[in-house]
Amino acid sequence: MSARDVLIVQEVAPRDGFQIEPRFIETADKIALIDALSRAGFTRIEATSFVSPKAVPALRDAAEVLERIARCPGTIYVALVPNLKGAERALAAKADELNLVMSASETHNRANMGLTCEASLAAFARIVEAARGTGVRLNATVATAFGCPFEGAQAPERVLDLVNRYLALGVEGVTLADTTGMANPLQVRRLVARALSRIPAERLTLHFHNTRGLGLANVLAAREAGALRFDAALGGLGGCPFAPGATGNICTEDLVSMCHEMAIATGLDLDALIRLSRGLPALVGHDVPGQVAKAGRPCDLHAPPRTA
Amino acid sequence: MSARDVLIVQEVAPRDGFQIEPRFIETADKIALIDALSRAGFTRIEATSFVSPKAVPALRDAAEVLERIARCPGTIYVALVPNLKGAERALAAKADELNLVMSASETHNRANMGLTCEASLAAFARIVEAARGTGVRLNATVATAFGCPFEGAQAPERVLDLVNRYLALGVEGVTLADTTGMANPLQVRRLVARALSRIPAERLTLHFHNTRGLGLANVLAAREAGALRFDAALGGLGGCPFAPGATGNICTEDLVSMCHEMAIATGLDLDALIRLSRGLPALVGHDVPGQVAKAGRPCDLHAPPRTA
Repeated sequence: MSARDVLIVQEVAPRDGFQIEPRFIETADKIALIDALSRAGFTRIEATSFVSPKAVPALRDAAEVLERIARCPGTIYVALVPNLKGAERALAAKADELNLVMSASETHNRANMGLTCEASLAAFARIVEAARGTGVRLNATVATAFGCPFEGAQAPERVLDLVNRYLALGVEGVTLADTTGMANPLQVRRLVARALSRIPAERLTLHFHNTRGLGLANVLAAREAGALRFDAALGGLGGCPFAPGATGNICTEDLVSMCHEMAIATGLDLDALIRLSRGLPALVGHDVPGQVAKAGRPCDLHAPPRTA
Repeated sequence: MSARDVLIVQEVAPRDGFQIEPRFIETADKIALIDALSRAGFTRIEATSFVSPKAVPALRDAAEVLERIARCPGTIYVALVPNLKGAERALAAKADELNLVMSASETHNRANMGLTCEASLAAFARIVEAARGTGVRLNATVATAFGCPFEGAQAPERVLDLVNRYLALGVEGVTLADTTGMANPLQVRRLVARALSRIPAERLTLHFHNTRGLGLANVLAAREAGALRFDAALGGLGGCPFAPGATGNICTEDLVSMCHEMAIATGLDLDALIRLSRGLPALVGHDVPGQVAKAGRPCDLHAPPRTA
């Protein structure tokens, strides 16, 4: 099986999905979902975020979640960290990997992190120091890599320069994130091809939102450029603060269904994912955007109506 | 500008969208929408269907719609016809083009049309006779070309044989329809490439539903194989009787936004389409699946929040 026949999905619903839910998801429910996701075959799960409990009360139980989940051998449990304090909490909670985040857009980084981009990079360097010798992996994300809702298009050179600086800091993985769903397939193919001249596909993750309906088309465009690893959220949880009613992350089970129909292996149990997704509306208290959980797999046939 | 830089959208909301709406859309509202669509730049609009008013009361005003719309020079107003009687009504109402429909799947054709496939083909021959000398164009659709909800996968040879038989009957255009959204991009690329060895791209239309989230990815796959012409519905109207809550046709304004972001010309006024789509919930009485109308175009920027 060649790399062209495989796609690696990192499940991010417990972090990127739950962080914006207005209703607090009970810690036991979070743990049950993460454990079920582990059993469904994920090798990477972004389990929580060590942000300020005041800023994001939805994830105030980050340490307890990491402590109580049943860790599956071979699965990497990732924690997003916004700063050194968050990194120290995540290290104490024994996250397998820290995901550091800043935006390509100066305006977005100030709005989202309260820091200039240079201050974020300096914080990254301190986190790298703190993690040294712990055996914990580091990934760094370029948010708004495909466009910023305040500034608009971001120069590819700016994004690629950040990739270079991340690698120089010593992080293992890099994520390019389309934070508010502004990317298009032509842009994705070009930027991913350039990023892959700097970092091998095994270490690059693409994070797409389906805000304007292009999430899965962007996945295929990234794959054509050589990408292997993608973030996705069960049920398409997540969202965009600037687009009420807009859809969130690309939907895990829709992505996996597409892959399996195209003979691309994911190692994931699609039936289990659909069952889990169908439980989400009861958990979060609203409908979710995922479509395969509503429509069924293409191979789920129906009885024809009786005709005269 | 090469053919690679152009995509032709046929708007089908007035037919494929309105036909399944439980609430009757007033004739004046249908006409106002079609006229606004004409002004937005469409060169092809599937305006209605001459089905039995008992079977599809939603479109019982087909003749009045065709009579009262303000026809735009250069725009082709298409009417779907299920049988010879419908074709005679459509010819009397001066449709510019008739769209004949049957399914690749014998089971689906019996369920949908009440006919065997051979009986449908015989009816097509009679319709061709009836249209001869009128100057009215003919298009014929292969429904369930990418899969049948009762039978499952359809052999490509079966679909391509129907394309051959349509062309032998003398129709000008052929549509391959993914009636219940079962297609995937790999399958689309392969089948479209084979179809284009039989019919030039200018005469082939692809009709995708977004039932499982792959509609726009399938458009790009078809384009890679050389396709030029696509059906889409404003707001993503339409649906699938076997998947309550599932999305319908691919969404016109989402498709057009994608194209314009990728420097593919459509000749359509995206701002006008978004305005029209934002009026649909009031017209049909429910939310619609289109995403760009909710999220705005990628270039619609937001003011950054004030930070300390």
